[in-house]
Amino acid sequence: MLDRQEILDLLATYCRGLDRLDRALIRSVYADDATDDRGTFQGGPDEFADFAIAVLTPMVSTHHMLGQALIEFEGPDVAFGEVYFQAQHKLADGSDFFVAGRYVDRYERRAEGWRIAHRSELNDWVRTEPAADQWFRDTPEALRGARGTADLVLRRHELRTR
Amino acid sequence: MLDRQEILDLLATYCRGLDRLDRALIRSVYADDATDDRGTFQGGPDEFADFAIAVLTPMVSTHHMLGQALIEFEGPDVAFGEVYFQAQHKLADGSDFFVAGRYVDRYERRAEGWRIAHRSELNDWVRTEPAADQWFRDTPEALRGARGTADLVLRRHELRTR
Amino acid sequence: MLDRQEILDLLATYCRGLDRLDRALIRSVYADDATDDRGTFQGGPDEFADFAIAVLTPMVSTHHMLGQALIEFEGPDVAFGEVYFQAQHKLADGSDFFVAGRYVDRYERRAEGWRIAHRSELNDWVRTEPAADQWFRDTPEALRGARGTADLVLRRHELRTR
Repeated sequence: MLDRQEILDLLATYCRGLDRLDRALIRSVYADDATDDRGTFQGGPDEFADFAIAVLTPMVSTHHMLGQALIEFEGPDVAFGEVYFQAQHKLADGSDFFVAGRYVDRYERRAEGWRIAHRSELNDWVRTEPAADQWFRDTPEALRGARGTADLVLRRHELRTR
Repeated sequence: MLDRQEILDLLATYCRGLDRLDRALIRSVYADDATDDRGTFQGGPDEFADFAIAVLTPMVSTHHMLGQALIEFEGPDVAFGEVYFQAQHKLADGSDFFVAGRYVDRYERRAEGWRIAHRSELNDWVRTEPAADQWFRDTPEALRGARGTADLVLRRHELRTR
Repeated sequence: MLDRQEILDLLATYCRGLDRLDRALIRSVYADDATDDRGTFQGGPDEFADFAIAVLTPMVSTHHMLGQALIEFEGPDVAFGEVYFQAQHKLADGSDFFVAGRYVDRYERRAEGWRIAHRSELNDWVRTEPAADQWFRDTPEALRGARGTADLVLRRHELRTR
């Protein structure tokens, strides 16, 4: 169960890395000799982190939400995962690009902990919609998700009761 | 792991409270001295429960779905969480209001168990769409989600095999 | 916690069965005397597996993503669950049918493990959208989700690092 939780935290950390544009965080979830294959990209962890930052930076915002993860252990140091996700991308022109898919992963326990040894992103469903909304009408800037260091999640240790 | 599970149940209970319009359930997940900040609202747990019920009641239905939760413990009685969500709101005029965001939370263990001590709702993505569907065409009334006491989840202990 | 995890894996297996059009997998999560009620269908596990395959087969693709599961145990061998889901269906004509709802379940531990003894699907929100996208523009065929044996998840044990 602890191994499983460590892997789940890895999956969530990956999404935080993408959505906050944090290259080091994206890189940290992969083993040094990992491979990543998503059709538009194939390569190792450093190349993937560079690719992801390059693709995502021009967008206005992204939200990578994970659903169920079916994780199977093959011995104490290897596991496979099928992880459902939905990703919302607000593009620079205001249009929306949606993807519903799955990550199909191999995890390996290394000296530094569990890491992604291989990730494939599968797309089950995509859709693009033209701009249709006044962006964040009701949300003051302080409570909009931000990329980089302005996001509240990076200041979470300051949160206090009254 | 048990602390983590207790916090996950708290997060799910919050959504059940919103979607079933159950003020007591919403209130129950907050510590008495908790604070909630979501831009359009800032205040304590009683004010937030009142605010949520007032905002949600005129809507036709809502669905607050949670994704990954990255929970970090700071000692035995304090934890921080980043919780992904997508919320669908069917408004009174039939239009749809979507939000994809995150809750950034501080949890504290109190005498009565883990509670939300602070919650901020961050919005990463919003979109409004005009009415586009015949609402619940194929779903008999008994199997539509209901708000308040008609919903099947409140009668779940009657569920039996054949 | 282990019982809870076994039930979560059952919930994820159900979705894998639907989205990969795997009748045996769908059937496997139900107890032999289980009941399923979703308005448009009421019946036992074999009838449900047949119904699901018949309804889903003409579609282009589906993606059933699970959110939070609030699971309550009633003794060591019975539990109730409220499980949030969002389902995306790409229909044969290219249009998209979305459902946001909940499964309200009774689980029972049988000789073979935890099984769904009763499942009701509740719909909280539905929406249909006309075809609006070039399907899978950027995704090479190998990395599209497939139904049946072509999907990568069925070859996951071949995944290797470089």
